[in-house]
Amino acid sequence: MEVQKKSMGELNRKDVSEFKSMNKFPLVVILDQVRSGLNVGSVFRTADAFALEAVVCVGFTPTPPHREILKTALGSCDSVTWQHFDNITEAIGYWKDKNYQIWALEQTTGSVPLEDMPLNDLPTVLILGNEVTGVSDEALQLCDGCWEITQYGTKHSLNVAVSAGMAIYQWVQRYNHGQKASS
Amino acid sequence: MEVQKKSMGELNRKDVSEFKSMNKFPLVVILDQVRSGLNVGSVFRTADAFALEAVVCVGFTPTPPHREILKTALGSCDSVTWQHFDNITEAIGYWKDKNYQIWALEQTTGSVPLEDMPLNDLPTVLILGNEVTGVSDEALQLCDGCWEITQYGTKHSLNVAVSAGMAIYQWVQRYNHGQKASS
Repeated sequence: MEVQKKSMGELNRKDVSEFKSMNKFPLVVILDQVRSGLNVGSVFRTADAFALEAVVCVGFTPTPPHREILKTALGSCDSVTWQHFDNITEAIGYWKDKNYQIWALEQTTGSVPLEDMPLNDLPTVLILGNEVTGVSDEALQLCDGCWEITQYGTKHSLNVAVSAGMAIYQWVQRYNHGQKASS
Repeated sequence: MEVQKKSMGELNRKDVSEFKSMNKFPLVVILDQVRSGLNVGSVFRTADAFALEAVVCVGFTPTPPHREILKTALGSCDSVTWQHFDNITEAIGYWKDKNYQIWALEQTTGSVPLEDMPLNDLPTVLILGNEVTGVSDEALQLCDGCWEITQYGTKHSLNVAVSAGMAIYQWVQRYNHGQKASS
């Protein structure tokens, strides 16, 4: 039998108004001083694909509309809810007040391997940091913990949009399994 | 206790010669007519981080050295083994002869959700396709199967480097668990 790509109809994607009104996964991504609009746009595209609650741009992180963001977001800025805060303390405070647990993706002295993320159904904030300096020390002190992607190679770290993708993918799997286990 | 980022020493990364001589995960990524050097470079960076066997560039997929690749690969072209083939049939044939199973990341009539990837320790080729048209029909007919990333949003697909990252992450987890289970 010939293998055929699914059509857009077969993929059964939502339109923007359906997306706006659907139940989202309770995961918020904070971009803490991310420099590149290309990376920001790519995170928006992933946030659309996984129906996340919101993307939060902090400090100098570019926000839509922005030439670089539009290039990689491919329209997902229209569907994904986003916010901007001038500083990370305000951004974290806003979501802590809504009872979100706060986790950063960063290689720290106490970080937990991403693959050991427990099953959970807790509303979660995931903080991603600057392309060069990572998550700010100010943010790290306010987190409930850090996840770290186990790496085997020569380089210090992964691209921020790629590592965001891995962490979002992993969180959504654990959330879905957690929901199944508790139902 | 203050949370501190790990230093490069604490991360215990390999240098290029250690990387060249280490045992790799038996996973090869084929880039089938990928247009953007930025995406290619980002896949090289991920291939370094996960100590993959090789990256294979097919057709017009740019190869190192290339301005865009260098910008996102950040030196990982020096560590990661790569090849170029003019066409996908040759590329797949080369790795089939080495007994690699051939999987594409593509949304097809028979694709398996990425989260259902079984535990396995089989040498694997993962094919990623063009940013707009996806994996070529020629490649799809030669594959043992397709993995699909379950998506919930409005857009057709994810960025190719981000989706490569998710699939590589998932494959390495399943491989590591498969190794543990069989030891």
